[in-house]
Amino acid sequence: MPEAITADTLESMFGNRRLMQQLAFILEVEKLKTVLRKTPLLDRSRVENDAEHTWQLALMAMVLSEHARQPVDLLRVIKMLLIHDIVEIDAGDTFAYDKVAQTSQAERELKAADRIFAILPEDQAKEFRALWDEFELKATAESRFANAMDRLQPTLHNFFTEGGTWSTTGVTSADVERRTAPIALASDSLGQVCDMLIAIAVEQGILAPKPNA
Amino acid sequence: MPEAITADTLESMFGNRRLMQQLAFILEVEKLKTVLRKTPLLDRSRVENDAEHTWQLALMAMVLSEHARQPVDLLRVIKMLLIHDIVEIDAGDTFAYDKVAQTSQAERELKAADRIFAILPEDQAKEFRALWDEFELKATAESRFANAMDRLQPTLHNFFTEGGTWSTTGVTSADVERRTAPIALASDSLGQVCDMLIAIAVEQGILAPKPNA
Repeated sequence: MPEAITADTLESMFGNRRLMQQLAFILEVEKLKTVLRKTPLLDRSRVENDAEHTWQLALMAMVLSEHARQPVDLLRVIKMLLIHDIVEIDAGDTFAYDKVAQTSQAERELKAADRIFAILPEDQAKEFRALWDEFELKATAESRFANAMDRLQPTLHNFFTEGGTWSTTGVTSADVERRTAPIALASDSLGQVCDMLIAIAVEQGILAPKPNA
Repeated sequence: MPEAITADTLESMFGNRRLMQQLAFILEVEKLKTVLRKTPLLDRSRVENDAEHTWQLALMAMVLSEHARQPVDLLRVIKMLLIHDIVEIDAGDTFAYDKVAQTSQAERELKAADRIFAILPEDQAKEFRALWDEFELKATAESRFANAMDRLQPTLHNFFTEGGTWSTTGVTSADVERRTAPIALASDSLGQVCDMLIAIAVEQGILAPKPNA
């Protein structure tokens, strides 16, 4: 494959600029399949990548939307989820418990959003960027529910692989509680499940207790 | 991880049967990440799996829905796509150009659908099964568009990896034309792109011409 399949290359083949911008975007963001996360698959055979992680979040939203604290527009939740990690093609996956990497995360991701969404036709670039901004801001019921999916999924995986990324040196239940707090903001019942998973994990010794507990 | 995380196991931990059936389904279908397809990634580093393939199709539907021949309910298209390959957890991926495996495909997939969707609460099991049946039947505008995404994506990947699965012994442009015919049924412009990709691929020698061409 050439380094980048641009809309210009495609337009010279097919005419139709708008459709070629759309295809160039689709071919560019396919790279999400190569961005690795820290979370293990449930069978522990390897860590997951951003693309398959994203599929799982969208499916979770489809299955669990009835548990949202406020009614949500499911299509908008899913659209947000489908694109929420695309910036990591340039910015990389920032590990949830890496405080150093997090200091530069926002800047790296904003720059990536500027580049990647601009591949689309202008109206769609605006729409997709607005969805990504909405996800990041967590100010609407839809973005809060989408973020809850993104926090619940690794919690389930860490619990059912008997530790997962929770076994990283220095991580305690206090970190995990902070990380998963957005779940209860979006859903009572999912927040309760998350709290119980953390409590059982500490009890079973697969998650370190709080420093002063 | 234990062999299967059932709703019974989860219910004994958390009460709430309905939510536990939903989580059991989510944890079961996570196995889609381990079902391999024949299609290579664009960087040719490996073949893709069903979960990341599914993410890509849902994103394609989000970007390309304006090209549908008839207006489509995008949420229903995406819901269909998110679950369309789940049966392959039991039935395996059936290669598009493997005529022997295709003779048993429908039976294997029906059996898988019976088992997997039944993990959900009854109302959702019915909803998801109906969506899967709709996808398979290709009788609605939404299912035709969803199927078009599923046929267009490997066409793009085969073309931009200079052959991909088209280089399988015995595959000619006649097979690829049959395989991609559903694209033009759903969209004029996407059907045209597909026809041009096939024509250029034959011209470039990365797809064998029809036997008597």
